[in-house]
Amino acid sequence: MKIICSKSELLQGVNTVLKAVPAKTTMPILECILIDTTDGQIKLTANDMELGIETKIKGDILDKGKIALEAKLFSEIVRKLPDSEVTIQTDENFRALIKCEKAKFNIAGKSGDDFSYLPEIEKDQMVVLSQFSLKEIIRQTIFSIADNENNRLMTGELFEINGNEMKVVSLDGHRISIRKIELKEEYNHIKVVVPGKTLNEVSKILTGGIEDYVHMFFTGRHIVFEFDDTVVVSRLIEGEYFRIEQMLSSDYETKISINKKELQSCIERASLLVKEGDKKPIIMNILDDSMELKINSFIGSMNEDIDIIKTGKDLMIGFNPKFILDALRVIDDENIDIYMINPKAPCFIRDEAQKYIYLILPVNFNPGV
Amino acid sequence: MKIICSKSELLQGVNTVLKAVPAKTTMPILECILIDTTDGQIKLTANDMELGIETKIKGDILDKGKIALEAKLFSEIVRKLPDSEVTIQTDENFRALIKCEKAKFNIAGKSGDDFSYLPEIEKDQMVVLSQFSLKEIIRQTIFSIADNENNRLMTGELFEINGNEMKVVSLDGHRISIRKIELKEEYNHIKVVVPGKTLNEVSKILTGGIEDYVHMFFTGRHIVFEFDDTVVVSRLIEGEYFRIEQMLSSDYETKISINKKELQSCIERASLLVKEGDKKPIIMNILDDSMELKINSFIGSMNEDIDIIKTGKDLMIGFNPKFILDALRVIDDENIDIYMINPKAPCFIRDEAQKYIYLILPVNFNPGV
Repeated sequence: MKIICSKSELLQGVNTVLKAVPAKTTMPILECILIDTTDGQIKLTANDMELGIETKIKGDILDKGKIALEAKLFSEIVRKLPDSEVTIQTDENFRALIKCEKAKFNIAGKSGDDFSYLPEIEKDQMVVLSQFSLKEIIRQTIFSIADNENNRLMTGELFEINGNEMKVVSLDGHRISIRKIELKEEYNHIKVVVPGKTLNEVSKILTGGIEDYVHMFFTGRHIVFEFDDTVVVSRLIEGEYFRIEQMLSSDYETKISINKKELQSCIERASLLVKEGDKKPIIMNILDDSMELKINSFIGSMNEDIDIIKTGKDLMIGFNPKFILDALRVIDDENIDIYMINPKAPCFIRDEAQKYIYLILPVNFNPGV
Repeated sequence: MKIICSKSELLQGVNTVLKAVPAKTTMPILECILIDTTDGQIKLTANDMELGIETKIKGDILDKGKIALEAKLFSEIVRKLPDSEVTIQTDENFRALIKCEKAKFNIAGKSGDDFSYLPEIEKDQMVVLSQFSLKEIIRQTIFSIADNENNRLMTGELFEINGNEMKVVSLDGHRISIRKIELKEEYNHIKVVVPGKTLNEVSKILTGGIEDYVHMFFTGRHIVFEFDDTVVVSRLIEGEYFRIEQMLSSDYETKISINKKELQSCIERASLLVKEGDKKPIIMNILDDSMELKINSFIGSMNEDIDIIKTGKDLMIGFNPKFILDALRVIDDENIDIYMINPKAPCFIRDEAQKYIYLILPVNFNPGV
């Protein structure tokens, strides 16, 4: 194989597929990036068997062929090359010569035949949305997936499409995040659970433009994201997702409207008194026009009053400050509404149109504190 | 004690003295920042017994007194406060109430009487230079101090003043870095060894302005840096520094002139093939108008030609690439001269005026490679 391409084009391609190279694996071939030019295009591929990424780069093919190169070393070499034309040439022993200006690298590769290609997917079910929307909706929900594997379904996100609405849900047993967006067209009903890891990686390689589109394809076992010159194929998580509708309620006894930034800064300050692993709640004491937030830990105590507009009853309720902060950080509204029932029932942070709903369970606290 | 000051003023003061708070210590009082207002100024102090920093901040003293507050917690609280006036008030049990707008923190402090003050230093020997010069000369030499304590003198830097010249030297057994700067006045002869840690911390809190000055005072056991509203006092390392003059030589058999950036980029690329702990040298094969750099490791091989202007003999010589890179990164000249004698003798990177001299020992290599 012999190809010539620009360093910048090669680097961008390598950085894109690098997201699917596993950090640890017992199969050395998975640590490689495949360069394949056999069908007349320069394609880079990485595949950890759960998630595969393929991207095409511009360049000249002087000799068709393929080679698998150790991803970490190859990407570091490409990164450090001068900004110029790069030639990659391989021999029958799978050694690769990488030339750029006067620099010549000679490294060992592996046969491209040992590489696992991405599965062929039938592209019947298709949904289109902007890269911006997909990137945003992932960011706004991904924090509340569970980080351990005790329940596989909790490590992924529900993607559900009904007509022209796409709903994304994540939950970890303490909280639920729900975001809805409107699609430009009507689609058939789709309901799949996408691994959190896939969404994290996809979100990193999306450029995020409002005018740039992503095509998503669904099958029973896979989801495919196509955008720019890149294809991402991921397995889905199998099983029936949690029935969240029955956990949602629009009843409330207390509703407060509050400046989001003020609440967020206040809870960030209070969190300083909570050390890792220490489960001190932040207590909200909701009165007529103001809410007192207080926290009391081994380190010290802190309290602060914040102006609110209240409807309904007074209430004293405790939360894990991290859970409230996670939700506040992904809400762009200047003012938010929080709906509560009693100190044992979940609270809901949601907008009028229910484009977002963040459900958070309260925690017990000693009201004497 | 009760004081009022702006959050920004307080934060800057806290960040300055924080550099002298030890990461680990068996004496809890050393983990504190002392706030002392007994003599009518708000002074913050931290002191790890080797290095002490004191800085004054602007503010109003409503009640004189002093308090020691746990540095990490206190600095985090200050950082997260709103940008407004901060009140700190303490009671007879050394509890501190920190108020800012509507936020109130209550944390436990310690008696200021337990705190170790900075030693009183007689300020007889004084040297003045710009913050810029001091910060630069530290950056340009600090990388070649030894990082283990086997030889205490190697963990510091020699500061030597002769007339109007200040010379700073560091060495670690494999290389020597020497920088000289001209001072505006003539001074008495001074020769001390300053701990590397002190210089690292001082360099972080210097603003680095050309028009901002540092006053350095020397005694037999201490060095004092005074600048802006800050005083840094550090112990010196005792003992006789290495006689470096006899290691320097102006003889050479081969001299090359080379573009610094080109050489640096090339060695950075070559370093990709050297893993941590692997001692593969980079080999320079110096011919008439060009130098071939090559490296050959378990991972692969790399070579590159660079244009040079050569005086003297051809030479093949090997170096630890890191040592060459460290020196190149702190030289600002576009072109540099490297002087060599033979593959066993040190090379010198130095300018005509000898404002800088970087001596680097070569390493053995297998010339057949």
